[in-house]
Amino acid sequence: MKIIKNPPENTWVSLCKRPVLDKSELDDVVKEIIRNVRESGDNALREYSLRFDKINTWEFKVSEREIAESSDLIPETLKSAIDIAKNNIEYFHSPQLVDEEPVETAPGVICWRESVPIEKVGLYIPGGTAPLFSTILMLGVPARIAGCKQIVLCTPPDSNGKINPAILYTAGLLGILDIYKVGGAQAIGAMAYGTESIPKVYKIFGPGNQYVNKAKELVQIEGIAIDLPAGPSEVLVIADQNAKPDFVAADLLSQAEHGSDSQVVLLTDNENLALNVEKEIKKQLAVLPRKELAGKSIGNSFSVVLDSLDDCMEFSNLYAPEHLIINTKNFDLLANKVENAGSVFLGPYSCESAGDYASGTNHTLPTNGYAVAYSGVSTDSFLKKITFQQVTGKGILILGPVISIMAEAENLQAHSNAVKVRINSLK
Amino acid sequence: MKIIKNPPENTWVSLCKRPVLDKSELDDVVKEIIRNVRESGDNALREYSLRFDKINTWEFKVSEREIAESSDLIPETLKSAIDIAKNNIEYFHSPQLVDEEPVETAPGVICWRESVPIEKVGLYIPGGTAPLFSTILMLGVPARIAGCKQIVLCTPPDSNGKINPAILYTAGLLGILDIYKVGGAQAIGAMAYGTESIPKVYKIFGPGNQYVNKAKELVQIEGIAIDLPAGPSEVLVIADQNAKPDFVAADLLSQAEHGSDSQVVLLTDNENLALNVEKEIKKQLAVLPRKELAGKSIGNSFSVVLDSLDDCMEFSNLYAPEHLIINTKNFDLLANKVENAGSVFLGPYSCESAGDYASGTNHTLPTNGYAVAYSGVSTDSFLKKITFQQVTGKGILILGPVISIMAEAENLQAHSNAVKVRINSLK
Repeated sequence: MKIIKNPPENTWVSLCKRPVLDKSELDDVVKEIIRNVRESGDNALREYSLRFDKINTWEFKVSEREIAESSDLIPETLKSAIDIAKNNIEYFHSPQLVDEEPVETAPGVICWRESVPIEKVGLYIPGGTAPLFSTILMLGVPARIAGCKQIVLCTPPDSNGKINPAILYTAGLLGILDIYKVGGAQAIGAMAYGTESIPKVYKIFGPGNQYVNKAKELVQIEGIAIDLPAGPSEVLVIADQNAKPDFVAADLLSQAEHGSDSQVVLLTDNENLALNVEKEIKKQLAVLPRKELAGKSIGNSFSVVLDSLDDCMEFSNLYAPEHLIINTKNFDLLANKVENAGSVFLGPYSCESAGDYASGTNHTLPTNGYAVAYSGVSTDSFLKKITFQQVTGKGILILGPVISIMAEAENLQAHSNAVKVRINSLK
Repeated sequence: MKIIKNPPENTWVSLCKRPVLDKSELDDVVKEIIRNVRESGDNALREYSLRFDKINTWEFKVSEREIAESSDLIPETLKSAIDIAKNNIEYFHSPQLVDEEPVETAPGVICWRESVPIEKVGLYIPGGTAPLFSTILMLGVPARIAGCKQIVLCTPPDSNGKINPAILYTAGLLGILDIYKVGGAQAIGAMAYGTESIPKVYKIFGPGNQYVNKAKELVQIEGIAIDLPAGPSEVLVIADQNAKPDFVAADLLSQAEHGSDSQVVLLTDNENLALNVEKEIKKQLAVLPRKELAGKSIGNSFSVVLDSLDDCMEFSNLYAPEHLIINTKNFDLLANKVENAGSVFLGPYSCESAGDYASGTNHTLPTNGYAVAYSGVSTDSFLKKITFQQVTGKGILILGPVISIMAEAENLQAHSNAVKVRINSLK
């Protein structure tokens, strides 16, 4: 990890730049996959299963038996850990479903919002080396709290046509039984437009590779909602001389192991800490199973030594990290100054992995600097807030003239007339 | 307006289809405008001002003098109407800014969310025949409540290089002084990437023509957030025999006058009502200043007579209207069944124009069926909800093993290590 000492402030913006991925070449490939799925449905899915997963099947839906059997295939300790994490996530996301009080904005004019679940949602869970059952909790729990009627889950099978039992167990625990063995851009197309076997949904959630992300981007343009724009995962740690270098190193590495494009940044007011963290990283990296991936990502990452912790916080707000760990003595002081971040971890014992799995907060967060304008997934992400208003006769007599004057000033006479016919009827 | 009697339920989906706009030809034109603005900044804006607005200028910013003078150029009655509407909108949107209580999800694990304003937002206000100062209230008021530090407003000038004084007055009333005389796709490009004179923002709001909408779609792919996907405005009215035909006709026409692509639908369980509304529409349309536009839109619209009001509600949920007026005797019963709508107007006196201007609810709403997954603009639209967590030593001792078990089951050893170094240090 490169250590950058006191970079002038006019270089901060360029230090905060993420690597730009050229996605343009994906465009045609993914457009074609989606078009094909939209037009040919299950036929197209079968074609891609053969081509990409080397599986010849017409049966995409996971049977209830497979879901039930998954419970015997994973250790009790894991089941109980998943149960605890589920409870914590429920406990944090439940109060996000609120009833709002009606407001009488003017005499006889009552307005309110109601939270109504998105009826049909789709969850994409990647396969590959890491079976991300934790992401099922992060998406499925708030979907259940919101009350979504139909939850569809797509995930790619392994070379034997099987889904990892931890994924099936977690889905089953949440009562998600519409599980399909389909991955990649074709899964996104299937959930966006529906096929003979996979139901169409209104909003699609979940992480994926560049094909999946491109597919989400393309269906969003067609009006299918998505959770968040995609980007590589990242952590920024602010640490002072009180931070233990082995804690900081472990936190940076836990992000770095996600993939070679992961971003890892350390900000500190203490150069010694940066040097000691560097040493610890080398030590811990040597024994990691994913040391190649993590090492590559660490190689692209950097530490910045700045004059003060306030400068560190300012830099962090410019960077807008997905995960922000504030491991300083007086972390409360800095916490109040956080403007742009996805999720924040305060103090020496709040490691990012706590939030990734079990503290209760959501791990689906804005990456790539999107935290300047986007929030992470929450119960809100599975709801629409519909506004209602009830204007009484008295209300329209009082408010009507205001509406008419404004409508006519906007040259919208019919808008004014809708008020006037009502006022005239009351005279 | 065509009257469709008791259409079989399997035809409802196709009745709910909106006209499909082919936007593909816009792609290249708008991409080029945005690229040019991104690369050449004010030079490009000047070029487009000359070409599209026939104005030769380097001075895009509206002077404070122009803003101050606007107050003398509009009638007192309009000013006072704008003030009342502003207060009602403030009154409705203020309680949407909530402080949430921290939650102790496990002993020593405290999690909470904080609402933090999006620092820089851009508002696009169309020019043309209707000076939409009401939209400034609908976007500017919640932006102020949220606490956005920088609010940039772009709006096209008229052929004399002037902005409508009602627009300037309304912006001034909200303390929005960063106003630029730039319209079209180039304004969206300017706010997305910044120019020498126009600041870059993180999220762009507001309605526009097809070029503006295309530009918002394109910058969204690059990570600039936008308020909502675009589509033509629409209203759906559910009315029974108790509804006054002239009220219903006026409501349908107030939507129809927005433009020839506006969608207007009447659902009723009473054929007589549909016939009487039809007559009233003819009568009212004849004297409307925008009768050509409104007539064209009415020509594309339809009434549906169904067996029951419950059937009407089911159809409406399938249609997912931007505006839903429920003008029936027992409107409360139907209100409870609303699943998909932007904003709902209950009872005989709740005309859509009330919500368009002054009831207090927001008029920036999901069109084109997007109400199945999207909410209208609210104070939330100007905020990020950042999650925080603080895990104590005790907390990591209790929760740590859960995290480690899950991380290792996902093959993420470094995630587990971040917990283990902490637990080991406490032993």
